Amino acid sequence: MQALTRPIWPHPEKAGVVQVIDQRLLPHTLKILDLHSVEDAIEAIYTLTVRGAPLIGASAAWGMYLAACTAPGGRISNEWMEESCEKIKAARPTAVNLAWAADLLMERVRHLPEDETRISAMYAAAATITDAEAERCRFIGEYGLPLIRKIAEEKNGKPVNILTHCNAGWLACVEYGTATAPVYAAHREGIAVHVWVDETRPLNQGSRLTAWELGQAGVEHTIIADNTGGHLMQQGMVDMVIVGTDRTTYTGDVANKIGTYLKALAAKDNGVPFYVALPSSTIDWTLEKGREIPIETRNPDEVRYVQGKDDAGETRRVLVPPENSPAMDFAFDVTPARLVTGLITEKGVCPATKEGIAALFPLGKAGE
Amino acid sequence: MQALTRPIWPHPEKAGVVQVIDQRLLPHTLKILDLHSVEDAIEAIYTLTVRGAPLIGASAAWGMYLAACTAPGGRISNEWMEESCEKIKAARPTAVNLAWAADLLMERVRHLPEDETRISAMYAAAATITDAEAERCRFIGEYGLPLIRKIAEEKNGKPVNILTHCNAGWLACVEYGTATAPVYAAHREGIAVHVWVDETRPLNQGSRLTAWELGQAGVEHTIIADNTGGHLMQQGMVDMVIVGTDRTTYTGDVANKIGTYLKALAAKDNGVPFYVALPSSTIDWTLEKGREIPIETRNPDEVRYVQGKDDAGETRRVLVPPENSPAMDFAFDVTPARLVTGLITEKGVCPATKEGIAALFPLGKAGE
Repeated sequence: MQALTRPIWPHPEKAGVVQVIDQRLLPHTLKILDLHSVEDAIEAIYTLTVRGAPLIGASAAWGMYLAACTAPGGRISNEWMEESCEKIKAARPTAVNLAWAADLLMERVRHLPEDETRISAMYAAAATITDAEAERCRFIGEYGLPLIRKIAEEKNGKPVNILTHCNAGWLACVEYGTATAPVYAAHREGIAVHVWVDETRPLNQGSRLTAWELGQAGVEHTIIADNTGGHLMQQGMVDMVIVGTDRTTYTGDVANKIGTYLKALAAKDNGVPFYVALPSSTIDWTLEKGREIPIETRNPDEVRYVQGKDDAGETRRVLVPPENSPAMDFAFDVTPARLVTGLITEKGVCPATKEGIAALFPLGKAGE
Repeated sequence: MQALTRPIWPHPEKAGVVQVIDQRLLPHTLKILDLHSVEDAIEAIYTLTVRGAPLIGASAAWGMYLAACTAPGGRISNEWMEESCEKIKAARPTAVNLAWAADLLMERVRHLPEDETRISAMYAAAATITDAEAERCRFIGEYGLPLIRKIAEEKNGKPVNILTHCNAGWLACVEYGTATAPVYAAHREGIAVHVWVDETRPLNQGSRLTAWELGQAGVEHTIIADNTGGHLMQQGMVDMVIVGTDRTTYTGDVANKIGTYLKALAAKDNGVPFYVALPSSTIDWTLEKGREIPIETRNPDEVRYVQGKDDAGETRRVLVPPENSPAMDFAFDVTPARLVTGLITEKGVCPATKEGIAALFPLGKAGE
């Protein structure tokens, strides 16, 4: 198979089918899933078959396309599309890209004739959103690269140590990634980089997905327990932190995978720059305060069980705590803007402030 | 079987045998191991069959007893005992209790006749150290209790939410635990307490051991990913943090399980009191700066593999990251004294400062 660079695409031969990488099975199994309906798309989002804010946005858009393809009796009414849109938006609460993309396609479809025009319009809009996300990530790489280059120069060619949390790579986005885009750009330019990969409990997106991505790309990396970053920073073993985000307020507060806030505190305490890489589709233009961002809680079994490959090569799950011990699973936390050195966006790097963001995005909204 | 309250004891019937709970197999299997030699004791310490600073100290003492029992040709020379002492001290680098206990027994044996007197002296000294550690932990409970009681009063009977990291319970100590001693004391007094149990990657001492202990004692608790504590504190869901320590400098810097520093930062940022519970045997009277404490690095497979019970009830390990992804395993970090609200010791609660510690321990050393 040709090396994959995107986690979602319309089936090359079959209309009405969208294909995704099943990210629950990585890194031990690379399986492609076919989505045939809006329900399939919603389930893929909810079960984390697809995950990562930009990819969730693209998946929502392709879900709207699948809704148009599967309208009951072939009648692609506004009622049906709106119902589908609302169901998609309810799949997960934290990433703002989900509602942003679904709403965008709803507005696009609303005034079109109720016929197959709507299917091709949804296809075109989903493809455009997907390509635009990829392009935004490419620019994030371009704008983030000088930050790494500068550290590399100061270190006289010694590897630049970058810590990241969760997976904000191309698997989470559509191409390049957000947090990883500057890393890949630096690697392509021949700058020596080494990534500390937080394993990212409970679902191990770091050790499963980021390590897999970086390994595929030949980028030096080391997996560490999430507990480790503070110690590494105290020891001068981290030159910068770059993470992604699921929703950032227009004032610069950053919701991201649970545990991000702890790394931001450690970065501040040790004078390590802490950057957040994001396309403008991840900015919530309606929210001022990070504490207003809804934080998803998920099934506690995600904490209690760990999935991996056993010594016989079978993928299976094991229960770690006692059978009857209760657990809780919070998926995100909010890092206050005061702890963020800068936001790396498709328009440039800015301070994590209302003014900084407004200077890059004067219209106060994301493009398509 | 009678409910266990200690993780180590001399075999009730066989001289020259020490028994321990194999903590690698908890919570799914409760297995008692017999130790017959100083090598057995060292392996138990190194493999984390026994772990936790106070228990490592007691295990070192019982290791010296086993050394006396197994001297070549029955000649319990100073040379043999010193060699054993040095080997025990080299088993793990961070917990100071190891060297403290081994050295204490070496001094005790040095001037005795080279006969069976030495065996009974080592037995008596190991038993005394073990009982003294238990007694110190009981006092830690007594002195920590009023801190919990005060919060309970302020909360009008609503549960006091205590976050802890790793296992500093009776499994880590000899009885009662350090961090858990005040919790058990509060629970016995009828104060409503609820413990947030950090799962404590990579070896899951929280979800495996602390959850098991608290469950056995009927103390309300919830297991969380290590990433979660910061979010909980931001949300006002943590009233206090209590952790143990593997080595504390005489100025109050605290080495403890990797990730402790991150929780201390979050506690500071959110005004949550952060206490460290420790017997004086864990204070290093020779070290001024926390950064001088040696930090153990362990086998990266401890990060890469997770052990648990599969759906068929078999204990097995699974590999989480890609086969060839490198990992690193740092076992401890150092929390600077400035982040510590207070130390809960067997002599009372004191500030984490040279003066605070000296006021409680004017002789500048631990008792036996």
